[in-house]
Amino acid sequence: MSIITLLTDFGVEDEYVGIMKGVILSIAPSARIIDITHQIEPQDLVRAAYITKYSYRYFPRGAVHAVVVDPGVGTSRSILALEIKGHIFLAPDNGILTLLMDSETVDTMIRVDNREYFLESVSRTFHGRDIFAPVAAHLANGVAIKKLGPPADPKQLARLPIQYPTVSNRGELIGFIVSIDRFGNLITNIDWESLEKFCRTGTGKTPEITIAGRKITGLSRSYENVKPKNPLMIIGSRGCIEIAVNRGSARLHFMAEKGDKVKLTFSG
Amino acid sequence: MSIITLLTDFGVEDEYVGIMKGVILSIAPSARIIDITHQIEPQDLVRAAYITKYSYRYFPRGAVHAVVVDPGVGTSRSILALEIKGHIFLAPDNGILTLLMDSETVDTMIRVDNREYFLESVSRTFHGRDIFAPVAAHLANGVAIKKLGPPADPKQLARLPIQYPTVSNRGELIGFIVSIDRFGNLITNIDWESLEKFCRTGTGKTPEITIAGRKITGLSRSYENVKPKNPLMIIGSRGCIEIAVNRGSARLHFMAEKGDKVKLTFSG
Amino acid sequence: MSIITLLTDFGVEDEYVGIMKGVILSIAPSARIIDITHQIEPQDLVRAAYITKYSYRYFPRGAVHAVVVDPGVGTSRSILALEIKGHIFLAPDNGILTLLMDSETVDTMIRVDNREYFLESVSRTFHGRDIFAPVAAHLANGVAIKKLGPPADPKQLARLPIQYPTVSNRGELIGFIVSIDRFGNLITNIDWESLEKFCRTGTGKTPEITIAGRKITGLSRSYENVKPKNPLMIIGSRGCIEIAVNRGSARLHFMAEKGDKVKLTFSG
Repeated sequence: MSIITLLTDFGVEDEYVGIMKGVILSIAPSARIIDITHQIEPQDLVRAAYITKYSYRYFPRGAVHAVVVDPGVGTSRSILALEIKGHIFLAPDNGILTLLMDSETVDTMIRVDNREYFLESVSRTFHGRDIFAPVAAHLANGVAIKKLGPPADPKQLARLPIQYPTVSNRGELIGFIVSIDRFGNLITNIDWESLEKFCRTGTGKTPEITIAGRKITGLSRSYENVKPKNPLMIIGSRGCIEIAVNRGSARLHFMAEKGDKVKLTFSG
Repeated sequence: MSIITLLTDFGVEDEYVGIMKGVILSIAPSARIIDITHQIEPQDLVRAAYITKYSYRYFPRGAVHAVVVDPGVGTSRSILALEIKGHIFLAPDNGILTLLMDSETVDTMIRVDNREYFLESVSRTFHGRDIFAPVAAHLANGVAIKKLGPPADPKQLARLPIQYPTVSNRGELIGFIVSIDRFGNLITNIDWESLEKFCRTGTGKTPEITIAGRKITGLSRSYENVKPKNPLMIIGSRGCIEIAVNRGSARLHFMAEKGDKVKLTFSG
Repeated sequence: MSIITLLTDFGVEDEYVGIMKGVILSIAPSARIIDITHQIEPQDLVRAAYITKYSYRYFPRGAVHAVVVDPGVGTSRSILALEIKGHIFLAPDNGILTLLMDSETVDTMIRVDNREYFLESVSRTFHGRDIFAPVAAHLANGVAIKKLGPPADPKQLARLPIQYPTVSNRGELIGFIVSIDRFGNLITNIDWESLEKFCRTGTGKTPEITIAGRKITGLSRSYENVKPKNPLMIIGSRGCIEIAVNRGSARLHFMAEKGDKVKLTFSG
């Protein structure tokens, strides 16, 4: 039994996701289909890139991950199939896999062009249904990734302009809010790796994070470490620094938006 | 393994859809349940009718499609079971299958009244749980459609007032916006068939569509055929003419609403 | 094939629910996972408590119900596993199972602390992924509930302040709006049991309900029992009294909110 995950900007108001599942089950009747989310803001490639990077590892090896946020549908943009640690990723060549490729070794990279695995008739506007769903289903059925097309040239792939954390001249670690979740938690791009590297210079001191001109001192061990409605800094579920408000919304508390800058320093 | 699709106006905030699935799995433990959408605006029969017509064909034969948009729940309205091309449709007799029946040959049409396949206790307000879910599950288990009740009389069925495209005295093809999707794409009811018939009179000329007093000339081959934020006309995934805006929302661009009229003509 | 249901406040915009399912399928590849809802307002324990009580019974015995509305995640609050009528419930010890425990006999009650069934690394913020999902999967695989930890002491459990219907000095049955669904139906906490007890004093008379100073007389048998846009009282799908508006929203009609009081009396 193979697993196919779906990450799209199709929403759940329309029939699009249901139809993709119909196509998948027509080809791979026993595939398990898991929705990661379909609520990516239309065409928000960066958010989809982060979610892809942080979610695939919780699925078993052999899973097929279809990432369909695709404003270029119907143009000459390619579709890529990548194999990474036994997982297969299907996505348009629009940079949406940039984060993943920056952090993982890609074992195989294919430009998907073998129409044998597409629906017979391919529309101009819905490759989720006509290409991604059937190709994912054939992969779930055991079709080898190399049958999908020729190798892709890594140098020619589209890239998203991803902002990684950097250290400023004044020795501060500069990061960005890259996601805001339903609870209003502000998820930064400061992960363990950048934190550990940076922390060597600050051992024994207390980390402080500055957002919107306001400072939060110390890492909390749980949301309830501070009083209700107070802000805190915590290592979130992605392993990145998050800014939260106990029983409240950090988004509202700080009037924060995606892309806002944060500054990590050490006190004392 | 049988497939049951669910199309409702129950939303996903409440427990209603989850409970329907519990009932289904209690009776048909191996059924695959696929959500088409549960976000039909409460009681928007016309939208459900279009989605049903355009989505079922992507599922394998033998699938059971439960369409539960049912403002008359608890009244004496009947429930219908239809067999069309090897698919089975379950829906209230409120016109929601009108579009489907207008375009396809119905092989069997049953008035569902055999309480043997209902839950033991049937509420006044939630036939999705008490009738549709268990009947769909029994069908998925192989119960013959004819066991559900007596034949229904096609002449006595409720009909929705569906607007089909028409040709005006001045030779224009008049259509309507029948759906607006999450991306703001305006989906008309002008399908291939009406287009082909109409086009015989316009061969070699360029199609133009008028919406809200503004004209779009030519069919695009992809959204990116025009500059960002510009409108275009394209054959959408339903095979119908759609009006879209590249990297934008045609709904906002034209301040369009469902039911708005469009006019197709030929230039040159 | 075992069933795991998920009830959370995680929403469907983020990757959280998808990741939980990845963890479950990594451990229990053939488990069936059913979403009850993920749209609980962040941290609305009372709503989750009602939904849990009224939905589990539609699933087959042996189902595992994970209820993850957990503002205390990362604190020392416990996680409970309960067995009730062959169903297993997993939830934080924050009172979310109060309603269920008040109405059913609990056969086994365990404080979940056996890390053998958790993910290897447990985060501070996402026990849904790190504890609830893997524990539910192991239960679905047949692990005995008693292996999860020591018995819990019923007297030490957190309780929610649940309001039950009461009879006033003037002989009125006082209830509360405890849920408002997508259609705007106002679901009260007046269930069959309280109604029957109360009705013995009013046999043969007509029930009347008062909300926001306005009175509705008589129980309707369906929404369409009254004219469009008119209010009605009906026994809803939970078996509780609901106030609805035919082809409209009782929420808007009465400007009602959760927690509003209703008063049941008898006329004539």
